[in-house]
This record gives sequence, C-alpha cells and structure tokens, in this order.
Amino acid sequence: MATLQDIGVAAGINIIYAFACFIIFALIRLQPFNDRVYFPKWYLKGLRSSPAGSGALTKFVNLDIWSYITFLNWMPDALRMPEPALIEHAGLDSAIYLRIYLLGLKIFVPIALFAFAILVPVNWTNNTLEQSKLTFSDIDKISISNIPEGSPRFWTHIVMAYAFTFWTCYSLHKEYELVATMRLHFLATEERRPDQFTVLVRNVPPDPDESVSELVEHFFLVNHPDSYLTHQVVFNGNKLSALVKKKEKAQNWLDYNQLRYSRNQSKRPTTKTGFLGLWGDRLDSIDYYTSEVDKLSKEIEAEKQKMTKNPKYIMPAAFVSFKSRRAAAVCAQTQQTRNPTLWLSEWAPEPRDVYWNNLAIPFVSLTIRRLIIGVAFFFLTFFFMIPIAIVQSLANIEGIEKAVPFLKPLIEKPAVKSLIQGFLPGIALKIFLIVLPTILMFMSKFEGFYSLSSLEKRCASRYYIFKFVNLFLGSIIAGTAFQQLDTFIHKSANQIPETIGVSIPMKATFFITYIMVDGWAGVAGEILRLKPLIMYHLKNFFLVKTEKDREEAMDPGSIGFDTGEPQIQFYFLLGLVYAVITPFLLPFIIVFFALAYVVFRHQIINVYNQEYESAASFWPDVHGRIIVALIVSQLLLMGLLSTKKAAQSTPLLIALPVLTICFKKFCKNRFEPAFKKFPLQEAMMKDTLERIREPNLILKGYLENAYTHPVFKDEEEEDESYIVDEEWKPENLVPTKRHSRRSTPLTSNYSSLGLSSRSLLEVTD
Amino acid sequence: MATLQDIGVAAGINIIYAFACFIIFALIRLQPFNDRVYFPKWYLKGLRSSPAGSGALTKFVNLDIWSYITFLNWMPDALRMPEPALIEHAGLDSAIYLRIYLLGLKIFVPIALFAFAILVPVNWTNNTLEQSKLTFSDIDKISISNIPEGSPRFWTHIVMAYAFTFWTCYSLHKEYELVATMRLHFLATEERRPDQFTVLVRNVPPDPDESVSELVEHFFLVNHPDSYLTHQVVFNGNKLSALVKKKEKAQNWLDYNQLRYSRNQSKRPTTKTGFLGLWGDRLDSIDYYTSEVDKLSKEIEAEKQKMTKNPKYIMPAAFVSFKSRRAAAVCAQTQQTRNPTLWLSEWAPEPRDVYWNNLAIPFVSLTIRRLIIGVAFFFLTFFFMIPIAIVQSLANIEGIEKAVPFLKPLIEKPAVKSLIQGFLPGIALKIFLIVLPTILMFMSKFEGFYSLSSLEKRCASRYYIFKFVNLFLGSIIAGTAFQQLDTFIHKSANQIPETIGVSIPMKATFFITYIMVDGWAGVAGEILRLKPLIMYHLKNFFLVKTEKDREEAMDPGSIGFDTGEPQIQFYFLLGLVYAVITPFLLPFIIVFFALAYVVFRHQIINVYNQEYESAASFWPDVHGRIIVALIVSQLLLMGLLSTKKAAQSTPLLIALPVLTICFKKFCKNRFEPAFKKFPLQEAMMKDTLERIREPNLILKGYLENAYTHPVFKDEEEEDESYIVDEEWKPENLVPTKRHSRRSTPLTSNYSSLGLSSRSLLEVTD
Repeated sequence: MATLQDIGVAAGINIIYAFACFIIFALIRLQPFNDRVYFPKWYLKGLRSSPAGSGALTKFVNLDIWSYITFLNWMPDALRMPEPALIEHAGLDSAIYLRIYLLGLKIFVPIALFAFAILVPVNWTNNTLEQSKLTFSDIDKISISNIPEGSPRFWTHIVMAYAFTFWTCYSLHKEYELVATMRLHFLATEERRPDQFTVLVRNVPPDPDESVSELVEHFFLVNHPDSYLTHQVVFNGNKLSALVKKKEKAQNWLDYNQLRYSRNQSKRPTTKTGFLGLWGDRLDSIDYYTSEVDKLSKEIEAEKQKMTKNPKYIMPAAFVSFKSRRAAAVCAQTQQTRNPTLWLSEWAPEPRDVYWNNLAIPFVSLTIRRLIIGVAFFFLTFFFMIPIAIVQSLANIEGIEKAVPFLKPLIEKPAVKSLIQGFLPGIALKIFLIVLPTILMFMSKFEGFYSLSSLEKRCASRYYIFKFVNLFLGSIIAGTAFQQLDTFIHKSANQIPETIGVSIPMKATFFITYIMVDGWAGVAGEILRLKPLIMYHLKNFFLVKTEKDREEAMDPGSIGFDTGEPQIQFYFLLGLVYAVITPFLLPFIIVFFALAYVVFRHQIINVYNQEYESAASFWPDVHGRIIVALIVSQLLLMGLLSTKKAAQSTPLLIALPVLTICFKKFCKNRFEPAFKKFPLQEAMMKDTLERIREPNLILKGYLENAYTHPVFKDEEEEDESYIVDEEWKPENLVPTKRHSRRSTPLTSNYSSLGLSSRSLLEVTD
Repeated sequence: MATLQDIGVAAGINIIYAFACFIIFALIRLQPFNDRVYFPKWYLKGLRSSPAGSGALTKFVNLDIWSYITFLNWMPDALRMPEPALIEHAGLDSAIYLRIYLLGLKIFVPIALFAFAILVPVNWTNNTLEQSKLTFSDIDKISISNIPEGSPRFWTHIVMAYAFTFWTCYSLHKEYELVATMRLHFLATEERRPDQFTVLVRNVPPDPDESVSELVEHFFLVNHPDSYLTHQVVFNGNKLSALVKKKEKAQNWLDYNQLRYSRNQSKRPTTKTGFLGLWGDRLDSIDYYTSEVDKLSKEIEAEKQKMTKNPKYIMPAAFVSFKSRRAAAVCAQTQQTRNPTLWLSEWAPEPRDVYWNNLAIPFVSLTIRRLIIGVAFFFLTFFFMIPIAIVQSLANIEGIEKAVPFLKPLIEKPAVKSLIQGFLPGIALKIFLIVLPTILMFMSKFEGFYSLSSLEKRCASRYYIFKFVNLFLGSIIAGTAFQQLDTFIHKSANQIPETIGVSIPMKATFFITYIMVDGWAGVAGEILRLKPLIMYHLKNFFLVKTEKDREEAMDPGSIGFDTGEPQIQFYFLLGLVYAVITPFLLPFIIVFFALAYVVFRHQIINVYNQEYESAASFWPDVHGRIIVALIVSQLLLMGLLSTKKAAQSTPLLIALPVLTICFKKFCKNRFEPAFKKFPLQEAMMKDTLERIREPNLILKGYLENAYTHPVFKDEEEEDESYIVDEEWKPENLVPTKRHSRRSTPLTSNYSSLGLSSRSLLEVTD
C-alpha cells in the first residue's frame, strides 16, 4: 500500500506534467502559424481570418514577451464567457456537457467538506490498525478501515451515507430541472429549423402499384389532410458516398503530387498502381490521378442518374414535412396504422445529425441486429482478454523473427530485444483499448441508429459498462471479467457486495493514482491537441494550395461525448463509492472536475465544432448513470459494513437504494418527457408567433430540400450554397443573434470537410 | 410419495364430486324458480322475461323427465354458439377470456402427446430408481428422476425443452396476433361510444382567476382549436355516494319491514336504533326507516346543491370530448405542455369502466401511494404468515374461554373441544386466503387507478405473484416465503434454480392433487353458483315487491378477472415446468382447461354480466405472464439438469431464456401498441364513414352528459332514462345488432343494481 508520501510524489509528478503541458500550450498556441489549430472555432464562425493582434508580431513567431508571462490567462478567459453567450456560441449540447463537470463540483465539494469535518476525525481517533500490526499508511488511518468491528462509530457512516445520498439527489434534481428548462427554452427560442416541421417515417409498406413517394403522399394526404406539406424520400446513397469518398482521396493525391511538382519542377512525380503503391506499372502521378478523378466523376454522375431513375435505390422511408410544428409534433407522437411496425413515425433528427448510411437498413433486420450486437457486446466485455492473450502469446520475439526474417539481426541486439520483450505483452492490450471506442461505434452503427447523437449516446453507455466491469470491478477484484462473472454466478446475492465492499478501501490508493494519471494528466494533454497539431501541419505542407484548402485542413474535432462522458461518469462512481469509505480520495476528484471544466470550457469556446445539435438530449443518460453509481455505492457500503459486524446497519441501509430508485422514477416521470416528446402547447405557440411575424412565409420552399442526401447536397452547395442559404433564412424578418448555421454548414459526416480530413488520414497513415 | 393408485383414488373422488355438481346443477337449474339465478344474462338483455318452455311445466317445479335425462346437454349448448355471436352477446373481454383456456389446450395437448410419445419411454426404460433402493412410485418411473446421472439420454430432454419452447412461443405469437386483430376489428366495427371521442385530462394546474371548467375550455380552445368540442369536469362525489349508499340501505330495511308487516299485519315490526340493532330505543321500524330515507334524501339534495356550487368539490380533472375520433386519438397520445406532470391526457375509460372514487385523488399523492403499496405488497407477500401465526397463538381454547366465558360449558365438551382444536389453527389462514383478493383490490384502489379494468388487471398481477411465491415456491421449498427470501439472499445465482429444480420432481403428486381439488372440483362448483342462489332466494323472500325489484335481486356477477386469471396462469406455470420433468401431470391440466372452458363458456353465455368492456386490454398481461412462466420453467430445468451432472446442458439451455426474452420483446413491439394506442388511420376511417352516413349528427348532445358522475345519473335515469337513451342512440340511422347497452345500463359500481345488492349483503350478513 502506498503511503501518503508516495501519493505526494505521484501528485507532484502529475502536477509538474500538467504545468509543462500548460506552458508548452502557452508557447505554441501563441505562434501565429498554429492559430488555426488552437482557434479553429473562430475561423469556422467567420469571426477570425488571420491570427489575432498581428500588429506587433511577425507572421510565424510571436515575439510579444508579455503574452508569454501571462501564459495562464486562457483560464480566466475561458471562464469569462457567460452561459447564454456560450450557448449561442457553441450550442446547447456543449454548454450542458460542461455542466456535467460543474455538477461534479457541486456534488463533491460539499461532500468533501462534510467528510473531512466529520468522518476523518471519527476514523482518525481509533487505533485499530495500530493494534492489528498490519502495515498501513496514513490514508488507511483516516479511512473506514480504522474503525474496529462492531463499533458504534459506524452510525456516523450510516448517517453520512444518508446525507450524501440526499445531497446527491438534491443536486441531481436541481440540475435535471435546470437542464430541462434550458432545453425547452432553447427549443422555444431557437430559429426555424427543418426538423421542427419534419417527421421521419420508416417502414413504408411495399405497394405493387405505387412508388414509395406516391404512397407516402397519398397516405399523409388522407390521414393528415390539413397539415401535410411535402416529403422527401430516402435514397440508398451508400454506393454513391463510397464513390465520392474515393474521388476525394484521388483528388487529395492529385493535389499532393501537383504541389510536389510545383515545388520541384525537375522531375514529374510517378506512382505505382498496385496495392499500397508497392508494385505495378509506374505511371506519371499527375496524369494518373487526373484520369482517376475524371473517371470517378463520371461514375458518380452515372450513379446519380441511376439513383434518381431506378426505384431500387429508394428506401421505404421518407422525411415528411408538415405545415406547422404542431402537426409534426402530433405525427411524431402518434401511431399511424393498425400494424405498429409499419409507417413508423418519429421526430426527424436535424439534417446535420442524420447518419445517412443507416437509413438504408431494412427495418426487419433491426431486431436481429440488436440481438447480435447485444450478444457481441456481452462477449466483448467479458471475454475480450481471450483474443488479446492469444495475440500476446503469438507476438513474441520468435514469432516476429519467423514472420519478418530480415529483421532478425536488429531484433537480436540485446537492448532492442529487452525493449521488445518488455513492451510486447502490453501492446496488444494498449492497442485494443485505443481502438475500443471505434469498435463500440462500429457496433452502434451496425445496430442501425440513424442519428449521430443516438450513435454517440449508445457508445457512451456501452463504454461506461465496459469501464465499470473491466476497470472498476476488475481493479477491485483481481482477475479477468470472465472470472468475475464466474465468481458472481457462484456467489449469493448478499456475498457479492461483501466481496467487493471489503476490497474497496484497499484500492483507494490505486484509484487516486489513476485519477491523477488519467484525469489530471489526460486533461492537461487534451489542451495541447498534439494529433491535430501534427495533422494540420502535415496537411498544410503537402496539400494546401488555397485558403479554402487551409480551412478544410483544420480539424476542430468535437467534444467526443462517446468517450468523454464515460470518463466523467467513472469519476462520479469513484467519488460516490469512496465518499464514505475513504474520503481522502475526494479532493483528487474535485481537482479533476475543476481542471477539466476549465480546459473543456476553453476548448469548446476556441476549438471544438459540434457536428450536430441535439439540445442536450443526452441528459437523461447522464442522470441515469449517476443514479446507478449512487446505488452501487450504497450496495457496496452495505456489503462492507456487514463484514464489519455492524449488523444493525443493513436494514437501515437497504432503504437507501429503494429510495434512490424511487427518486429515479420520479425524475423520469417529471423530466424525461421534456427530452422525448414535444409539447403541443409549445408547438402551437411557436406556430402562432411565426404566423403573425411572417404571414407570407412560404414554408414549402424552405423544407423541400432540407433532407436531401448530402452527396447530392455537396454539389448544390458548391453551385449555389449562398443563394439557397439566403432563400432559406429570411433573417431580415426574424432578427436573431445566432449565425452559426451558415458557418457550420448543414452537412453530415459526408460533408466535404469530414471526407477530406478522413481520406487524408488514410493517405498519410 | 403417492402411488399411481393413490392418485387414481383422488381422481375418482374428484370426478364423482364434479359429476355430483353437474347433476345437482341439472336438477336445480331446470326448476323455473331458479331461472333468474342460472340465466340472468338473458333477463338483463331483455330476451327472457319468464322461464323458458313454460308450457308443459308448472310455475315452480320442472316435471319434464326428458330434460333430466339430457342433464349434460348444456355442454354442447355452450359450445354451439359461434365466436362472433359470443362477442356480440357477451362482449370481447369475455370471448378473449375464454380463449385463454383454449390457448392452454392448444399449447398443452401437442406437448402432452409428444411428451408421452417420446419422453415417457425414454424415462421408463431405465432402472435408476429400482437400483437406488429408494421408495418410488410409477409416476417417478416415468419422470426425469429415473434417468441416471450424466446419462446421454438427457439430450432428449434438452431437445424436448427446445421443442416445447418453440411450440409455446409459436402458439403465443399466433394467439397474440389473432387477439390484436380481433381487438382492432372490434374497435373498428363497434358502434359510437363516448370514450372514442373523449380524453381524460388530469392535474389541471390551479389558477386563481379561472375555475377548472373555464381553464379547461380555454386551454383546449387554444391548443386544439379545430377539434375541441366540450368537456365535463370531475366532481368529488365520494361523500354523495356514501349518502346514496346509506339511503339505499335504509330503503332496503324499509322494504323488508313493509313486506314483513304486509305478511303479518297483527304486529308492526320494531327496531332498535343502536349499534347493529342490539340496543337503543325500540321504535316502529316502518316509521323509523321512512323518516331515515326522507332525511337522507334531503341530505343528498343538499349535498348535490353544494357540489354544483362549491368549487372545492371540483377536482382538477376533466373529461374532454372532441369533434372527431382522430382528434381524441391525437390528444390522448401527445404531451400537452412543458411540464409533463400537468395537463396529463390519456384515453378516457368507457363510462361504465370509470372508478369514480379515485378521480378525486390529487395527482401529487399518486407516486407516494404507489410506493406505499409497493412496500406493503412486499411485506404482504413475504411476511403474511406473521400476523396469522399471532392470531393462531391467541385463538386457542383458553383464549375463547376468557373472551366469552358463558360458552365455557359448551366448549369444554370433548367432541366440541377437539373439533375446535383441530379447526382453529387453520381457520385464520383460510380466512386470510378468502379475503386476500379483497385486500389486493383495496390496495389497487388505494394506489389510485381510476378504471375498473386497470384495477382488476393490477389485482390479477399481484395475486399471481402471491400465488407464485407462496403456493409454487412455498410448496416446492418448504418454509414460509420469508425463509425462502432469506435462503435466496444467501444463495448464489446458480444455486437458486438448482435448489428449486431438485425438489420439483418430488412435488409432482402434490400438484396433481392440487389441480384436481382446486381446478376440477373448483370449476365444477362454480357452475352451481351456490352463493348467488342463496342470496337470490333470500332477497326474493325478504325484499322483492315488484318485478323491478326481482330484476335487481339477480346477481349475475362477472368473470372475476382478478382471481380467475391468476388461477389459469398458475396452471400454465405448472404445465410448462412439468412438461419436461414429469409429463404425467399434463393430462390433469388438459382436463382442467377443457372443463373450465366449457363451464365458463356456459356461464358467460347464460350468467355473467360484464361491468365494463375493455376490448381485451388485458391480453398483454396474460401473454407476459405465460412468457415468465416459460422462462421460470427453463431456469428450473437448467438447475435440475446441472445437479444431474449433465454439464453439457447448461450452455445449450442458457440460450432458451435469452431467445424467449427476445421473443417477448418482439411481441411487445409488434402487438402491444394495438392495446395502448389508437392508430390515426383507423380513427380517420371511422370519422369519414360516420360523416358520410350521418351528416347531420349532433355529437355535442351525445357527449355532453356521457361522463356525468353516476350519483347524478341515477336520478336522471330514473326520471327519463328511456328518453335520454333514445336521444343518445339514433339506432334508426346506424342499424346494428347489438342492443346490450340499453339493458346493461351505463352505470358504474354505484348503479342502483350494484348498490342495492351490496347494501343487502350488509343487511343480511
């Protein structure tokens, strides 16, 4: 067990690392040539087109010394922007995401104060550990381990468990209420958006006499006669998007070769046509890629022609738009026909949020896909160690020598050999953990969700489960998840919390170190944005010809809800579990929340560019997971106390999870509908207001092409994006302050931006 | 363990008992003076007004010998009515209820055939039991107990478990599909009903400036401007109904005394005013009750005045009616305002189905009530033995002697004493079991459901849980439910199915006897209707003066979903659990299902009068509980086989519950919406059809008073029931064959019929 001093050293190292990150960040972010890496949000919003304050500085290097001295100034800057402005600047999703960190502070600061004021003295003034002759550290002395068995002092812990539960629920309730209000306010005040009028209708039944489009029109003209406006059928554009992607890639290679040639005109670049450019005929690169691009352009054109003519490309789904928000709200919330699996209507995600590939999945296969992924995720969580162990056993020195014999002399050198031997066993696991979010995202995509927000939500919940099983339980009970599973099946319901509960206090130091390495250092590293920094400069050097190219080379990224939120949740879990048992852990969590809050606030203001806006639809998930963490902490405390012979505690503590579950149910009834349904009253109010403000609005023109597949849209935008835009937003009629839609275009994953950066990754990898 | 012979004897006794019941039934049902007890349904429908075939018979005794010889003729008669006619005659609820028995036959007849063809020979051709030197019976020889440990023969059982699961799921799926279609067809073809146009709106927020009625009107005029028609606010009529009930009781006593006086005019009857008529002043009964009735009439009048004037009597709830079914469907399925706990809209139950008392419960208290009842039901299920044990320990001979010393000489007689001593310990439990459904109904009422159908559904599910824990588990594992709970908490997840699984084969004979006593004999007893028979004749003798009184004295009863359905479910559970383990039990269950089907079909055709029509809304519950029984059977088989050292079975069997759960999810998605929502297309079709058929229909007049509190309605009906009725149903415009509404009046629990019979119960008890 680590002593207080060990932890002090670890804390020191991590603090120094974090400060180093901040200093490096201060140094490189102030250099004008990095400006687009550290302030892309402002470029995208059109509020910045060249490095700020360029007067006293040269073009590439910042020589203003004062700006180096005040290198931590970004922190107060990040905190200065008030929340309403932040919502306007970065959207509600980002603002609410930050509130999760704030919620962590709100919950844990009072809990930590109470715990240190009451629990620490109660624990400290015993000498159980001293009498026990076990090795122990100061941390154990102020933890629950120092209380003798059956001591009446456990009453303090029970009372504190109640107090902490009450406080957590109170904070959660207040926060849920606030977030729901903010969401409704946001929805009520936001400008006109196509998804407010549109419903996604899936599983249109086949009809031998009518096309899908005719069928949809007739159905809605009959069943929503007064309110139906227009509809757009969904095309299966997967092949087309693949072609577009391929073309983008060829285009990138062409750009790269042209740039190379323009820099060194003595020799025209050549390329091999075979696999990875390793063999095949050697051709002139520029000619080759020009012809490739031309060929693909023609193919794309042909495919587009086919799509519009061949009914096979039309999916049995459509985006149906209504004349009013109320009518759309009605259609989205009601069942259309007898058969509840036909004519399924639900709110359309906003156009940017649509994940187009999955709209082409036939509805019948969804149940099977869900089952397959459910089973696959179960095996992934509990048996992921098996393939990794196999890889580890294969990937030894001998294996490598066999596979690539020409490396043998190099590997045989003692220094290299020991490095590989020390490094190899862990590498498979490390690689797995790095690609895990990608695997989870692939699983969610396979499952058939058709909006990016729901994909990310599902990933987040799966990632959290994985972390809970393999990191939390896996650290507390040694052994793989499968062994745990086996143990749990063979243990009784009351033994499981006991087994875990007993190990909890012993693992406090491990988790403290984990918080510092993963939390503190990770957050500090986040601000450096090393990967985008490198990528941007590579692109800038190899591909960028025009200012537009440079804009596309920026990779602002986004919050990354699918990986970020489970991390926060894990700290909530640790905090709640250790609040009563080892309160010494709490300050470390508080530091994490505070630091992360500042860093992410800075990033959201200056860097991240959200792909979509779901108006905080993730909050019920966040809330639910904190509640689950709370219940886990209560059960573990119960298990721990029952081994401490504090028998009177069980009946008292069993009320806690029951009450917590009731609280969850209450919150679900009270607040969740705000995230799932759209009240008619609100819709009616907005409709009425709009009718008064803009009596001559022609909604049909606005909605007609709102849900065009992005492969069609890209071209349109190139041709007449601004005209379309002007037409769509009569901003002179409804003056609003938000202009972000223009700068963050209505494109999805397949937008030219997303595509070029992705294909570039493949080029440079 | 009982041998085959023992079971044969028990079966013989029960068969004789059943036949005796049928013969007695044949004898007494043919007597004209019992006609109203055994054919009340026909009287209520107005299709019978005097005993049938009265030509050759005297008025009281049937002398036609042929009718005695063909005493079992009611069975084919009951089966003869085709299902559509049955639906028309008795409603969809009753017809679907019968289908549960049919479903039992459909599932278990093929399973039994297969089991006897395959499993019995496989089990029989071993001699494990003979070698084991244990006492065993022939039943054990054909059960799974006769297979040696680790035998490859267990493969047969595993394959059969798959086959039975597949067959059960197939039957369930077919049945669910059919029931859903029947429900939708029923809803589509049924005549105009107020609940099709009406939505119940609860938790109308208070407003200082407007009354609830004004508030509702304004809200719906604004938010459903084109479709809002009218509304009726809900009054708190609980005090008034109590008064009406009291008046009915006094009226009954008055009738009774007047009748007594008219028969024996020599002496005017007198009564004492005190508690139970045991003390107090002795008064002239007729005068006393006349004045009582007058006084109560005045009080009722005053209360009615108060209700209409005092806003405190108006609950924040209203029945809101719309101009079309579509509009009502829209309102019922959508959220009205931001705050999801205000302006809650849901389908109104049909007027007969409303449980008025609970409409007066403030919405805020519902969550708390639900929590209280949840905890109470938990304690009721697991700890009900404690109070009974206390009563048992008190209710001994000495206790009785102390309480009522004057009985001492009687009790001290040896015969009486031994009778009491043998009888007393069981009596508290018996009484508890008899009143259990009443306790459960009280719990559901306290919980705040406001329709009789949902009350019965909730009772049924609770009663089933109680039976499952205390009868099924309680019989298999000896000991009280609390001891079981304690065992389960201290056992591991894999041990629980093992513990139960091992005991299962041993308990087969017990359950066979149970099926015969509770199932066979119980169903045969049901047809005799002993209690209504006695009650009717008592009423007929003491109260009936006019033909109308006689009509009110009939107590047709209803199916009793809350107690009947859990019984069927229990047999499903037994059948599915024992199908693989002891197939010998199956024929007994099949006999039960067949017998019950015939008996209940007869009762539904001739006797029962459903209080409400919910269009089979209970089916998802029925389906769900059969699925749960299936999963329980799979888990127990898994537990049993794992103790039989058939280790290879566990991974194979674990797939079964997973697949079954998937099947349940699939069914939920596919069929359940048909029971919860009302598709817009259907509503639109009915609306359009109606508009064409009856262009001049004035819907407002039809709906205006549809949801008047029954205490107001009773009077109206007395005064002008037929006029109102004619006005409501322009039957000359839509000719339908169903006339049942007139004869089964639109009254709820508080109808004069219900009241008088209930108050009479109190009089005669």
